Amino acid sequence: MRLYDYFRSSAAYRVRIALNLKGVVPTERTFVHLRMGSQRAQDYLALNPQGLVPALELDDGRVLTQSLAIVEYLDETHPTPPLLPADAAGRARVRAIALNIACEIHPLNNLRVLNYLTGTLGTNDAQRNGWYKYWVDVGFEALERQLERDDDTGTFCHGETPTLADVCLVPQLANARRFKIDVSPYPTLVRIESACNALSAFAQAAPSRQPDAE
Amino acid sequence: MRLYDYFRSSAAYRVRIALNLKGVVPTERTFVHLRMGSQRAQDYLALNPQGLVPALELDDGRVLTQSLAIVEYLDETHPTPPLLPADAAGRARVRAIALNIACEIHPLNNLRVLNYLTGTLGTNDAQRNGWYKYWVDVGFEALERQLERDDDTGTFCHGETPTLADVCLVPQLANARRFKIDVSPYPTLVRIESACNALSAFAQAAPSRQPDAE
Repeated sequence: MRLYDYFRSSAAYRVRIALNLKGVVPTERTFVHLRMGSQRAQDYLALNPQGLVPALELDDGRVLTQSLAIVEYLDETHPTPPLLPADAAGRARVRAIALNIACEIHPLNNLRVLNYLTGTLGTNDAQRNGWYKYWVDVGFEALERQLERDDDTGTFCHGETPTLADVCLVPQLANARRFKIDVSPYPTLVRIESACNALSAFAQAAPSRQPDAE
Repeated sequence: MRLYDYFRSSAAYRVRIALNLKGVVPTERTFVHLRMGSQRAQDYLALNPQGLVPALELDDGRVLTQSLAIVEYLDETHPTPPLLPADAAGRARVRAIALNIACEIHPLNNLRVLNYLTGTLGTNDAQRNGWYKYWVDVGFEALERQLERDDDTGTFCHGETPTLADVCLVPQLANARRFKIDVSPYPTLVRIESACNALSAFAQAAPSRQPDAE
């Protein structure tokens, strides 16, 4: 396996956590420098027409894309430890938490969107940072309310072992901190983040621990 | 079951298609008027803290949210016809196509984001429409390249039966048409859309066919 990775991509960060939790070490890693635009290079686009990281190249040459699809693939092909609960309703809850981050927060705040805001719409720094903070706060507020109230919430987002939901939560919190967003209104999210980062699978996946970290 | 629905929500549209494909008719439907802000009403927020549609209330009172999580739940609890392929790599491909729409196009173009652009950032109509078109084109171009080239593409996004990928593609194309985006550069997407809409499960889920359509 070869992981196409970038230390600061929170989608790649999700896959790194899942690979560590599963004990799957990809044979090789290629670092795609997003700020230098390496994801738009022809050889990378041939591999992943989306021009996004991460991508996971299997030994048979197939290339998997989209972090949540990759994590589900890893969960199906390496079932232990499971990253989704055994019951359908629990699986739906975990997937919904993951999607609340992957569909409602992250897409609005990734690099290409911020570039469009400043480049095409001409927003200033305050407007750009306001945009970033607004969508994080909207998403985290809803997530905090849900996790605080649900009986299914445990040490982790769902029960006592990490799931796909935690795999998405930790990178999003790391992003929020990098943009200096006050996360103190979200004590449940922060508590779960701490429980996750106490595990080496999470800690070793952190952006600052990657070989391409700047 | 009760579906919390809105005719123009493309995320709800995905769930309507899946329910029709599975032959599951929810006992009741509640229409949440997004343009009138009904999703922010306290009783709806108590049900779904995200304040988004769709939501699917099960007979035991559990409430499922996030359209892709709901569709996966329906697929697990009503396995026939399957909306995901049997093999893990095929499942990963279908999920990635769905996520390419659900994470890379739709979140940038939904109502609350467009409202932020005009309300908070003060963009004019041309800038707002330019934003909409830009993210649809970026997403559709990548998807067209992928579907056009992959051997796994068939009558539908993946093979000869509809999957989660088609469930996401058709509503996104409907949205693009509503915003008068030229979809002729995406012949593979349009061909698949036609194949889908020839099926009553897709046709009957269309926004214009819903009781709350304006």
